[in-house]
Amino acid sequence: MDDDELTTLLKDLASGVTPPEEAARRIARLPFADLGFARVDHHRPLRQGWAEAVYGPGKTPEHCAAIVVELLESGSGPVVLTRADDQQVAAALAAAPGGTRTPTATHPHRASAVSWRHASLRPGRILIVTAGTADLPTAAECEATLRAYGFAPTSLVDCGVAGIHRILASLDDLAEADAIVAVAGMEGALASVVAGLTPAPVVAVPTSAGYGASLDGVTALLAMHASCAPGITVVGIDNGFGAACAVARVLR
Amino acid sequence: MDDDELTTLLKDLASGVTPPEEAARRIARLPFADLGFARVDHHRPLRQGWAEAVYGPGKTPEHCAAIVVELLESGSGPVVLTRADDQQVAAALAAAPGGTRTPTATHPHRASAVSWRHASLRPGRILIVTAGTADLPTAAECEATLRAYGFAPTSLVDCGVAGIHRILASLDDLAEADAIVAVAGMEGALASVVAGLTPAPVVAVPTSAGYGASLDGVTALLAMHASCAPGITVVGIDNGFGAACAVARVLR
Amino acid sequence: MDDDELTTLLKDLASGVTPPEEAARRIARLPFADLGFARVDHHRPLRQGWAEAVYGPGKTPEHCAAIVVELLESGSGPVVLTRADDQQVAAALAAAPGGTRTPTATHPHRASAVSWRHASLRPGRILIVTAGTADLPTAAECEATLRAYGFAPTSLVDCGVAGIHRILASLDDLAEADAIVAVAGMEGALASVVAGLTPAPVVAVPTSAGYGASLDGVTALLAMHASCAPGITVVGIDNGFGAACAVARVLR
Amino acid sequence: MDDDELTTLLKDLASGVTPPEEAARRIARLPFADLGFARVDHHRPLRQGWAEAVYGPGKTPEHCAAIVVELLESGSGPVVLTRADDQQVAAALAAAPGGTRTPTATHPHRASAVSWRHASLRPGRILIVTAGTADLPTAAECEATLRAYGFAPTSLVDCGVAGIHRILASLDDLAEADAIVAVAGMEGALASVVAGLTPAPVVAVPTSAGYGASLDGVTALLAMHASCAPGITVVGIDNGFGAACAVARVLR
Amino acid sequence: MDDDELTTLLKDLASGVTPPEEAARRIARLPFADLGFARVDHHRPLRQGWAEAVYGPGKTPEHCAAIVVELLESGSGPVVLTRADDQQVAAALAAAPGGTRTPTATHPHRASAVSWRHASLRPGRILIVTAGTADLPTAAECEATLRAYGFAPTSLVDCGVAGIHRILASLDDLAEADAIVAVAGMEGALASVVAGLTPAPVVAVPTSAGYGASLDGVTALLAMHASCAPGITVVGIDNGFGAACAVARVLR
Amino acid sequence: MDDDELTTLLKDLASGVTPPEEAARRIARLPFADLGFARVDHHRPLRQGWAEAVYGPGKTPEHCAAIVVELLESGSGPVVLTRADDQQVAAALAAAPGGTRTPTATHPHRASAVSWRHASLRPGRILIVTAGTADLPTAAECEATLRAYGFAPTSLVDCGVAGIHRILASLDDLAEADAIVAVAGMEGALASVVAGLTPAPVVAVPTSAGYGASLDGVTALLAMHASCAPGITVVGIDNGFGAACAVARVLR
Amino acid sequence: MDDDELTTLLKDLASGVTPPEEAARRIARLPFADLGFARVDHHRPLRQGWAEAVYGPGKTPEHCAAIVVELLESGSGPVVLTRADDQQVAAALAAAPGGTRTPTATHPHRASAVSWRHASLRPGRILIVTAGTADLPTAAECEATLRAYGFAPTSLVDCGVAGIHRILASLDDLAEADAIVAVAGMEGALASVVAGLTPAPVVAVPTSAGYGASLDGVTALLAMHASCAPGITVVGIDNGFGAACAVARVLR
Amino acid sequence: MDDDELTTLLKDLASGVTPPEEAARRIARLPFADLGFARVDHHRPLRQGWAEAVYGPGKTPEHCAAIVVELLESGSGPVVLTRADDQQVAAALAAAPGGTRTPTATHPHRASAVSWRHASLRPGRILIVTAGTADLPTAAECEATLRAYGFAPTSLVDCGVAGIHRILASLDDLAEADAIVAVAGMEGALASVVAGLTPAPVVAVPTSAGYGASLDGVTALLAMHASCAPGITVVGIDNGFGAACAVARVLR
Repeated sequence: MDDDELTTLLKDLASGVTPPEEAARRIARLPFADLGFARVDHHRPLRQGWAEAVYGPGKTPEHCAAIVVELLESGSGPVVLTRADDQQVAAALAAAPGGTRTPTATHPHRASAVSWRHASLRPGRILIVTAGTADLPTAAECEATLRAYGFAPTSLVDCGVAGIHRILASLDDLAEADAIVAVAGMEGALASVVAGLTPAPVVAVPTSAGYGASLDGVTALLAMHASCAPGITVVGIDNGFGAACAVARVLR
Repeated sequence: MDDDELTTLLKDLASGVTPPEEAARRIARLPFADLGFARVDHHRPLRQGWAEAVYGPGKTPEHCAAIVVELLESGSGPVVLTRADDQQVAAALAAAPGGTRTPTATHPHRASAVSWRHASLRPGRILIVTAGTADLPTAAECEATLRAYGFAPTSLVDCGVAGIHRILASLDDLAEADAIVAVAGMEGALASVVAGLTPAPVVAVPTSAGYGASLDGVTALLAMHASCAPGITVVGIDNGFGAACAVARVLR
Repeated sequence: MDDDELTTLLKDLASGVTPPEEAARRIARLPFADLGFARVDHHRPLRQGWAEAVYGPGKTPEHCAAIVVELLESGSGPVVLTRADDQQVAAALAAAPGGTRTPTATHPHRASAVSWRHASLRPGRILIVTAGTADLPTAAECEATLRAYGFAPTSLVDCGVAGIHRILASLDDLAEADAIVAVAGMEGALASVVAGLTPAPVVAVPTSAGYGASLDGVTALLAMHASCAPGITVVGIDNGFGAACAVARVLR
Repeated sequence: MDDDELTTLLKDLASGVTPPEEAARRIARLPFADLGFARVDHHRPLRQGWAEAVYGPGKTPEHCAAIVVELLESGSGPVVLTRADDQQVAAALAAAPGGTRTPTATHPHRASAVSWRHASLRPGRILIVTAGTADLPTAAECEATLRAYGFAPTSLVDCGVAGIHRILASLDDLAEADAIVAVAGMEGALASVVAGLTPAPVVAVPTSAGYGASLDGVTALLAMHASCAPGITVVGIDNGFGAACAVARVLR
Repeated sequence: MDDDELTTLLKDLASGVTPPEEAARRIARLPFADLGFARVDHHRPLRQGWAEAVYGPGKTPEHCAAIVVELLESGSGPVVLTRADDQQVAAALAAAPGGTRTPTATHPHRASAVSWRHASLRPGRILIVTAGTADLPTAAECEATLRAYGFAPTSLVDCGVAGIHRILASLDDLAEADAIVAVAGMEGALASVVAGLTPAPVVAVPTSAGYGASLDGVTALLAMHASCAPGITVVGIDNGFGAACAVARVLR
Repeated sequence: MDDDELTTLLKDLASGVTPPEEAARRIARLPFADLGFARVDHHRPLRQGWAEAVYGPGKTPEHCAAIVVELLESGSGPVVLTRADDQQVAAALAAAPGGTRTPTATHPHRASAVSWRHASLRPGRILIVTAGTADLPTAAECEATLRAYGFAPTSLVDCGVAGIHRILASLDDLAEADAIVAVAGMEGALASVVAGLTPAPVVAVPTSAGYGASLDGVTALLAMHASCAPGITVVGIDNGFGAACAVARVLR
Repeated sequence: MDDDELTTLLKDLASGVTPPEEAARRIARLPFADLGFARVDHHRPLRQGWAEAVYGPGKTPEHCAAIVVELLESGSGPVVLTRADDQQVAAALAAAPGGTRTPTATHPHRASAVSWRHASLRPGRILIVTAGTADLPTAAECEATLRAYGFAPTSLVDCGVAGIHRILASLDDLAEADAIVAVAGMEGALASVVAGLTPAPVVAVPTSAGYGASLDGVTALLAMHASCAPGITVVGIDNGFGAACAVARVLR
Repeated sequence: MDDDELTTLLKDLASGVTPPEEAARRIARLPFADLGFARVDHHRPLRQGWAEAVYGPGKTPEHCAAIVVELLESGSGPVVLTRADDQQVAAALAAAPGGTRTPTATHPHRASAVSWRHASLRPGRILIVTAGTADLPTAAECEATLRAYGFAPTSLVDCGVAGIHRILASLDDLAEADAIVAVAGMEGALASVVAGLTPAPVVAVPTSAGYGASLDGVTALLAMHASCAPGITVVGIDNGFGAACAVARVLR
């Protein structure tokens, strides 16, 4: 129910077309489709500009396919399925052909992003900077989501601070970006260095890559929050999708 | 040994039928059946109104079956086996036919609840509200247990607070419920919102569903305990069974 | 805005008294009083049966007093100020004379509950069981809140499981209670034992009392959640107020 | 050294004015003022648009004053001193009169922000939403920093999700904001609800306010990262200053 | 109620002196003195050989004194008050003169053990080995408790493993001891080395002494539990009293 | 090298049979067998009364077999291999026939204890009390080790405190035991209750059994250390072997 | 780009061979090879004396092989691939024959170090001391790295402090070493004892070996940091490679 | 007892001057002075090159003074007292005049290092690099200890990576150092950047300075251990003294 519909409803009420009790019931309600196992939020595009994404883990392949179909049929704009395993991907693509699949894990059968009906291209120079090769799957999830939403991000890979010149080599790119996603596991120091070199918004994504004392990404998450560089913002561990959404909010 | 038996014993003692030393030995003892590998608590129905449940993990299929049989034969009322794998389910149903099996995990071979001899229907409007699809197995464990104990709960699925209108759509149900179980992983915020909208008892169940920083349910458990909504109570992570028992205590 | 007011509004809309745009703005709004520094929730009594409590820490004495006055003047029913220090208590009692003060810490100047306009007596046998003397302040907060809400709880003190007969001595009380609050620090085992002995709802309150490895109450909180007794529910550390609200939900 | 200066240097080198060895030494160097106990980063305004802030804790009053003076004398634009105690504030204001002091703690002597030479007003509708009264000091730090940088944020206080209508009452403000700062302790659920209601960038600030199991803000930080609302970004606990910087990056 | 009393009661019942209902009520009850704020466990000497100790923190001076008096008057054997501050010590000694005070903290006003009516000397060579000077208060609490219970422990101080010869110098003492208490903070390695050198029971006490990453004793507690020396047992952090009780159980 | 050998060496030195430099080198050395991948401690029986045990995990089957053979051939007394998988068991039994295998996990192929050359029977009433069926494997490891060392422990199974009468039924056994091992996962409350009922040494073994918030045994470990029952000692999680060694130290 | 190249560039600039804009672009840049998925740091040998190592996990076999080839072809000195699985090892050896493979896990297919073009032998007595057999894989990773870099370390295995004489037997080796790597899981006490016996630099490596409360190496890491022996330095859990690099820094 | 004394003892034994039993007792003993409350390790200079330091916290002023005097009178070389409060400093300087006091906390009365009889100057270019002003006290403890041991370290202050050019400005110093101490709180990224720029040994010292999510230094400690720069070693939180000892081991 968008603003126009709400006003229409109230006019119908004022003119007697709709009785007050019925209006009272409807007014507090926003639209969603109840599939029995899920309540698909068709109001989200109105509130936020794009539909909710379908998160794969914990859903049956049939559920994934049904929600994707519901979002495609009853809504408009891009539809994204994240962290889907091979069976979920197959079910979704069978029910909704034409999706683009992006592997988002080293082992491509484990987790993919699939997207349908990409938005038309939007402006905005987005830089996705990764610290090491093991951070690439998280960056790929971020990039696939951004592309579905109409953005064309650029990637800088393997810029870990142990060889500080690798990031300094891209100073111009950092200075000109409209938004930067810094993806790093281990100690996550890349985010602090990048944020110190650019005036752009920096979304830091800690990853679970690392060893020694990286604690599956908790160390990087804490370190990014304790950063000495002002104005870093952080999303959850390995959450490339969330970083993409944060950038999309900034550049909408 | 219930209250009558105790008084009988003491009367026998007073009348000389039972010698004092024998009585002293028996009085401090409450009944249980010692199966060698387990002490089945036949006194629990007297103390609490229903028999102890059989928790599958860590037990052999034979043990599961034997305890179920013991509870069925020597007691009365419903018998519940929780988190049983396929082998345990098969052994229990072979030894005690007629049980109702409910899958309580996405992959149905992994964990099921099985119940025998359901109680007759009890009054009480119970609402089980879940935040997302991945929380459904925990809700299923809760529902299966409640049904065994004679309750008829209603479910509201996929009410996560990121689309707050999905829960607001059920305001009347929340207002009229006698008890509410709020099942949520991720940040667990559903419990706070629900508890703010209802005067009923709210049992919050944190689940291990989530990513980013959900720490296998620890984040949701802590968040539910730090809730700004007064009077929420919380059970352990993924503990749908415990939530059902808590509700049964409230509505007994 | 209660249900009648909503229907009135819509009727005024239907009859043209209220224009549609104005109605649209008002319909989604529920009442609260905006004091500038706080939004006092006057709708809560309608939703939950009693007003929000005022939590002292982090508020100036003036803020405490002003919110208490607002709740007393614009609402009805009991008003409770929790964990107030001496200055906050003084300011609140000066602005709103007639409140009942209950010390809820060993050192009485540190944290008190103050309550005004107690509800009339409600039925319900409530038992507050504490494990040790150091748990008494948390129990006092629980008791003061319950008394403000119209309940008359009974206390069993110093029932720690190291002397199991002390709790067994009160078996009859446990069996007859309508709701039990089990307050325990250290390892929190009291909650498991109590819940095994009663069919009533058990709200466990971990406290920060203890040493050795009690970790300021975290150990008791975790232990109560890992309890082997089914149907225990738990509130936050030292949260006697929350336990009282949970009991009030059960017995409303 | 900005881009022009670098090209000038290299032209001087090409024309023989500057010998190569001297140029090599200078080129890799960016400007800072070495005060002995601190290296004031005068290059930051070129890189990021505003000077580094002075973080009070751990510095002597004399150090605070000297760095503030250095930033005011050798640079331009706003200067901010954060979390300064009374002695640091006094020393800084004595050395650099004319600063604006904002208390950023309940007890005003504990921690203040002081700012000098505010930037001229910049456009941008910024909303600072707080969950409870105890979150106000963190919000105050955020607001003071934003004002120094030329922004004019609006505040919504006491919008905790236990009374969900208090935030729903401001739906229009949420929908029209260019950036939102959500400040919440306890379980931090406000951030999820807000992010679900707006398409704007949301910077979530967990605070150390709370009890029960809030763990000095760690629970809120984790919960915000595990949020079910896509695109939330998070800064460190109580870090109102960092949230302001993040917003300034978005709206520069 | 000891065994004789129980048999007497049952005989009275058998002879009609006591009616069955009355007997039923009494039989399940073991003796304690209800002081209102505490239930003093007078049955403990029968179960365990010595009375419960009085733990100071969280009790008022008056409560400490009253419990000590109750234990002295209604029981026999040693009475111990632990971690008492100056006010508690004064109140207890005023009410029960003749107690022996032992400071158990570096600053003697902070925490003392006080003991009355020491048991007569018992055999048993007990060695209390401490790693560093900062561990002495915990060792003092252990020693004071053991002396009250009739033991005469020997102390070896400052035997940290960084100078391994300091503990090797006492090999004979280690070999001949009947029980050893190893008190160590920091990394707690003393316990592993000691347990490798003696066949006696070793009770390890982690202390909160240390810095760097000692985490207030948690590191030592974990390290002692992960020890490579078989058969170490551990008590809680700084729990010299508990170690003494453990030794008393071994040597009773 | 035992005491006699040392004196002999020194006499040889005194008589000129051994030159001083040679003696100096030997004196500081105690015997062990260097197998290249392991240094088998043949001095341990002299120091502690029994040989070191062979811990399976992380060792190749060949290494397990070789160390067992070395201990059997060069030493005397019992030899124990713990937590061995099927391949390690097979290799060890092939190299050293005649060992007794005890499964110490629900799935018998996963972890077994194997023991050779059991000590002759020693006196001592040892009670192994377990809270639930899932704790039995840890208890089995404890029992197998004790039997190898010559003890004959008794078991009480399934005595969890949720049915407190199950442990009260064994009060006489608890009162008469010389040492008690309390094995419990979940919240570990069994240890507190048992220790309150017996004067004997109590070795508490937290297990990783449980769910909700048991954190793989960490909750039980912390809770046992925070116990309100004085004199409990604790070993590491699932460490049935360590508990057996602790008991053997007490009863040697 | 080394120092000579930089001066040459600037001379070319001074002489007009290189235009200033081109020089500005090049000067801030240090060399690396951009393979698309990785930026191989060819400058590291100039900065640090040896090339970066290739860390296997998270890389495809093809990526591993390509980076190894790049390092071999464009650089000089040793090349090391760590924690490679069988497929990665095969791909790397197929692309770059002649590498030396060292298993660095109990199961040799899981993780190997492979090294090419070993440095010529360097002086320095390095001792790698391990506490138990399960620590050998970490020690092997350390040793393989050191050998690639031209060192010839010596190993002392199975020196756990539970049999303190095993490490005392090697006092002379400890006293004469130029650097010592102490590898230990469990409680990690070996590092403290070793550091107390030698004046050499001690690099402590906590390993994930252990049980009871070793928390996958976190306990050993914390304990080594809380060590009572001054001057211990610590690397991450299981980080044998990092320890080798630290020793190489010391002995370069 | 050094090597000569041991050989002398054995010769006396060989010649009959010392009887074998007496020699046996003495041989296993290394020298220390037993002060009753401390065992001063006079053997440490022989093993490690310098005497043990006196750690202030937890010692009485009298104990501090007595140990310092014992070390000065019975030994040679520098003596260091660390983290001493004003009373301890006064007592030590009264008993042993001539010590050099260095404040090692922002508030100089809280913790000082005092040193006596400094060693003569040793070679070695040591660089102490700090990230921020709040890290200076820890750096001061490190520097004071190094100066006592005869070294002359150089300091680089306020080099946090948010302004990466501040550390790049000192590239030559980093390249030429023989050892580097990197002191940083917050996210501790300085250590990774420094270690990437130098071939020298790097000892990283996490400090407790910081906010947001720095967790009193735990975040920096973990981050330094998870560093992507190879060969960093780490000491405990705020442990400037330990870092100095580690450097002294490297440069001895």
